Amino acid sequence: MSEVNMGYGPGARHADHELDEEQCWSLLGSSGIGRLGFVHEGRVAVYPVGYIVSQGAVFVRTSREGTIARSLPSQGAALETDSLQPAVKAGWSVLVNGTAEAVEDEAELTRLFGLAAEEPWAGGVRDLFVRIRPERLSGRQVYLAP
Amino acid sequence: MSEVNMGYGPGARHADHELDEEQCWSLLGSSGIGRLGFVHEGRVAVYPVGYIVSQGAVFVRTSREGTIARSLPSQGAALETDSLQPAVKAGWSVLVNGTAEAVEDEAELTRLFGLAAEEPWAGGVRDLFVRIRPERLSGRQVYLAP
Repeated sequence: MSEVNMGYGPGARHADHELDEEQCWSLLGSSGIGRLGFVHEGRVAVYPVGYIVSQGAVFVRTSREGTIARSLPSQGAALETDSLQPAVKAGWSVLVNGTAEAVEDEAELTRLFGLAAEEPWAGGVRDLFVRIRPERLSGRQVYLAP
Repeated sequence: MSEVNMGYGPGARHADHELDEEQCWSLLGSSGIGRLGFVHEGRVAVYPVGYIVSQGAVFVRTSREGTIARSLPSQGAALETDSLQPAVKAGWSVLVNGTAEAVEDEAELTRLFGLAAEEPWAGGVRDLFVRIRPERLSGRQVYLAP
């Protein structure tokens, strides 16, 4: 925990602080749904995705024909996940930035299909796993100050 | 509704379709919490934000000292909002892309503060409104096929 920012004036009862790396990994692993951010045709795209955390990387399962598959390999990507409680205006978010690449290794794919207990939500064949190798991990918590 | 993508093989019972502009605006207005995506120091940043929809634009309230304020004026931004129901693997998401600029007009700021019934969650003074003028609006729904 660092850089605790206690409010003053409007929002005075709220505070926020940065999460350390261990907290970020823990929270990242506690969810399996996030938003993938990447640049597509000069614009920032942000889409909900299911993901798996395994062996220090994040894996997103998607379609080989979709926007994600076409845009990712050449560029970095961001995966954000959060838990927000509007009723108390509190929550946390974690952001992973890193290179994105399709998983091509057959043994690795078999392992990932084994881990991916959940079927994807959207229709169509979604047999592409995109690996995000984290280069930067950050997180933040917002809460009612005691 | 267009491009209905019925699944086959794994995920066969799921389908997804694109939402039209009217549906996108309606869903955008039904929430007030989303994720702002933008490029910061060469990386895609995605952070949870509160927002208001008014007069055909999206307004995000933030701090003048934060990453958002420093990064936005020169670049476009994306606002994503969604409603996801993991239990039934269904949900929708809407993505707005557009120019981002700080609101400087005093009368407009007064109007926005009046609309912003909710105090921001995080601590500190958050008296900057960033206006996103939509240039592109897209949305998608994922659901169990009947």
